[in-house]
Amino acid sequence: MAVPPPKLLERALQQPVVLLLKDGRTIAGRLLGFDEHMNLALDGAEETAGGTTRRFGKMVVRGSNVIAIHAPAPGGKGA
Amino acid sequence: MAVPPPKLLERALQQPVVLLLKDGRTIAGRLLGFDEHMNLALDGAEETAGGTTRRFGKMVVRGSNVIAIHAPAPGGKGA
Amino acid sequence: MAVPPPKLLERALQQPVVLLLKDGRTIAGRLLGFDEHMNLALDGAEETAGGTTRRFGKMVVRGSNVIAIHAPAPGGKGA
Amino acid sequence: MAVPPPKLLERALQQPVVLLLKDGRTIAGRLLGFDEHMNLALDGAEETAGGTTRRFGKMVVRGSNVIAIHAPAPGGKGA
Amino acid sequence: MAVPPPKLLERALQQPVVLLLKDGRTIAGRLLGFDEHMNLALDGAEETAGGTTRRFGKMVVRGSNVIAIHAPAPGGKGA
Amino acid sequence: MAVPPPKLLERALQQPVVLLLKDGRTIAGRLLGFDEHMNLALDGAEETAGGTTRRFGKMVVRGSNVIAIHAPAPGGKGA
Amino acid sequence: MAVPPPKLLERALQQPVVLLLKDGRTIAGRLLGFDEHMNLALDGAEETAGGTTRRFGKMVVRGSNVIAIHAPAPGGKGA
Repeated sequence: MAVPPPKLLERALQQPVVLLLKDGRTIAGRLLGFDEHMNLALDGAEETAGGTTRRFGKMVVRGSNVIAIHAPAPGGKGA
Repeated sequence: MAVPPPKLLERALQQPVVLLLKDGRTIAGRLLGFDEHMNLALDGAEETAGGTTRRFGKMVVRGSNVIAIHAPAPGGKGA
Repeated sequence: MAVPPPKLLERALQQPVVLLLKDGRTIAGRLLGFDEHMNLALDGAEETAGGTTRRFGKMVVRGSNVIAIHAPAPGGKGA
Repeated sequence: MAVPPPKLLERALQQPVVLLLKDGRTIAGRLLGFDEHMNLALDGAEETAGGTTRRFGKMVVRGSNVIAIHAPAPGGKGA
Repeated sequence: MAVPPPKLLERALQQPVVLLLKDGRTIAGRLLGFDEHMNLALDGAEETAGGTTRRFGKMVVRGSNVIAIHAPAPGGKGA
Repeated sequence: MAVPPPKLLERALQQPVVLLLKDGRTIAGRLLGFDEHMNLALDGAEETAGGTTRRFGKMVVRGSNVIAIHAPAPGGKGA
Repeated sequence: MAVPPPKLLERALQQPVVLLLKDGRTIAGRLLGFDEHMNLALDGAEETAGGTTRRFGKMVVRGSNVIAIHAPAPGGKGA
């Protein structure tokens, strides 16, 4: 049974997520909501860009800038 | 209960917001309104780009240039 | 009460406006009209790019090139 | 009374116009027609790019490449 | 009476046309057909890029890459 | 009988796939679902970029960043 | 009688085709299907980029990356 992207995002509501943006920024926060353009509403948003982190609180991110959305799982690194 | 992006923007009406634009500009102002393309109407708009600030008063910003919208909260900085 | 972007543009009809374009140009003129794509019709259009000004008279600017539209208010500059 | 962009283009039908394109080209010609995407049909089209002019006769220009359309008025230059 | 872009393309059916593409390529061929996105079907397609010509026969070109379409008229060159 | 792109993706549900992204990243994972914009939902997502691999678990990739989707077949390399 | 682009692609079903992509890649394969966005489904896909060829088997290519689609005819080269 398929899990289309909106369904996967729905399951992530109120959960922490990480957004990878086209310009290299990463934005982490709790997912408050989203729409069909993949615009996203976050709470406790933290942007990381070039090794610097800024805290923004509530934030709307326009979907057209987003590459991918994932859970902030303790992912391993390797070559 | 989900808070989709338009709902979060609605709550920000008449409040100060900060827009992060694709070309690196930041525009701050009071949110007068928005539409489904995330075009935004601001009052008391101030643009910051390359360390310089310009005041524009009323301003319409086309949504396609916007990366994110957040409240001008006293966010901390860190590595 | 919200003032969505088209409403703010409507109020600017027949008034002088300044357009900030994506490629760095600025176009000033009197706003004759606009449409839902934020295409704009101007009279007395003057383009400023790289310190040079050119006068064009009537002009249609395609909305997809526009970053923002504001009134030519005497805005201050600062660091 | 507002003059939306299509109305201004309609008035320019059969008149000489100049197109500013995103890649810096300028295309001049007589406006034969246009559509809602701002695709344009020209007669006697002349392209100017990097100081060189080429004559093309009839030409269709895709609207997505257009920044602005204006009359070839004798505009002044200044700093 | 206006000649909108699709009408001008219709008149060019079965005729030789030249396409100017965004990346600087030129593609010449006989116009077999087109659609509302300005996708184009050509026969006897020849691509010219960087002084090199390649022959492709039948070809579909996606409209989003097209700047302009014109007849291969013997256009003059000048400064 | 034609196999349109959505049909081919449907056959790949629950199978491992590899996504080639516009910025050079490769993302591999099990395909959970997709939609008409080619947004994709993956499980066990692994990103490879510049020789480094990161594991993300569940991930939504926005279709506008995708160049191509293929099976992780043992493809040969050659000049 | 016009042959619009979808009709030309229909005739190419089950035939070998070559895709020219915006980033310079070439992808060759047998055309399994396509849709109205010019998304393409291929079998026996082979990518060529920078003189290197990789075999992928079945592949979906997103139409927004495609410049042109042609038959792998033995085209001549010349200046």
